[in-house]
Amino acid sequence: MNAKEVKEILDSAKKNDVFLMEAVWTRFFPASVEIRKLLAQGEIGEVKMVGAEYGVPLFHVPRSDQKDLGGGALLGLGISCLQFISMVYNREKPESIQASGICLETGVDESVAVILQYSKNRMAMFTCSAGVHLHGEAFIAGTNGIMEVLSPMWCPTALVVNEKVTQYPVPEPSLPLNFTYSTGMRYEAEEVRQCLLKGNETSAFCLL
Amino acid sequence: MNAKEVKEILDSAKKNDVFLMEAVWTRFFPASVEIRKLLAQGEIGEVKMVGAEYGVPLFHVPRSDQKDLGGGALLGLGISCLQFISMVYNREKPESIQASGICLETGVDESVAVILQYSKNRMAMFTCSAGVHLHGEAFIAGTNGIMEVLSPMWCPTALVVNEKVTQYPVPEPSLPLNFTYSTGMRYEAEEVRQCLLKGNETSAFCLL
Repeated sequence: MNAKEVKEILDSAKKNDVFLMEAVWTRFFPASVEIRKLLAQGEIGEVKMVGAEYGVPLFHVPRSDQKDLGGGALLGLGISCLQFISMVYNREKPESIQASGICLETGVDESVAVILQYSKNRMAMFTCSAGVHLHGEAFIAGTNGIMEVLSPMWCPTALVVNEKVTQYPVPEPSLPLNFTYSTGMRYEAEEVRQCLLKGNETSAFCLL
Repeated sequence: MNAKEVKEILDSAKKNDVFLMEAVWTRFFPASVEIRKLLAQGEIGEVKMVGAEYGVPLFHVPRSDQKDLGGGALLGLGISCLQFISMVYNREKPESIQASGICLETGVDESVAVILQYSKNRMAMFTCSAGVHLHGEAFIAGTNGIMEVLSPMWCPTALVVNEKVTQYPVPEPSLPLNFTYSTGMRYEAEEVRQCLLKGNETSAFCLL
């Protein structure tokens, strides 16, 4: 849950020569692949602003308000917004971060809003809440248009590029699912398989 | 454009015993009246978060990048977001404001993102840009659901309350319009008429 722990995992993976990747399944959906392709092609011009929001009442789940169990809005939900912004800006580090939020008595965040400033006058912002429902949508605004990821942005199946909607349906499930679009897990699994076949130690699309 | 100038206007109106109201036409659209009614009824429970965004490339208009002419994103566009938040929170003053943005060489803001904290653990945030297009939408998230104002939120004609869409069409124009939904100006004009008939010195829905 912190940088020290991540470093331990990284060191251990290196020492033992094993594959390690952060399990951000969102990155491997066909819609995410398309976003990266369109951005690289300059489809919406120069990107100036990225935004995302994600809110789900979560505090009925016992661990979600416990600090030592990684509770709170940012770690539980905001991470989906942050990974999106990080993907769009090619893992560039922001020049400044401003954040403000609401804290529960247990010491975890109920809601957080964050503004990030990047080089070349680019911005990003996101809002997450474990207290109230927010639409899980994201957008990328450029000098030549806007690209939107419809809800749920964390397992994206619909992109809107300058008002043109394209659907990217996930495979039909053969058994009942516990979570939204769980069959989309196969995209991440396939990426790991490809990395292992090539002998890579991590995925280029999900670097730690 | 600043508090001193507003005070001069207020003093002059009082001294001369004339009607004065800030011309926020958005407040008088039937959709805005409905929002206030639904909030008062507790339709979405206790409001916890309000958000809005508005972005239009504006810098081809000469005055929009001139500081002494009131240029920039916040004064030109952000004000529509702020008035929405202020309406939802009944003109309560925020307890804290965090803002970050991009400044042009002329000294005006190209883009701004703002996070506001209110009493009782309530929040608001908005983003505005005079450099790129952003969807002009707003939302109000409560403990019992979410209310959305579809674009254009500054002259609202469609509300979504817990996924149920209701349209509030403006009157048909009898002549070509220069601006979006200009016939919606009549709602504000009617409010002023009613205030004048009653001898009020301002409107209760648009206090300075």
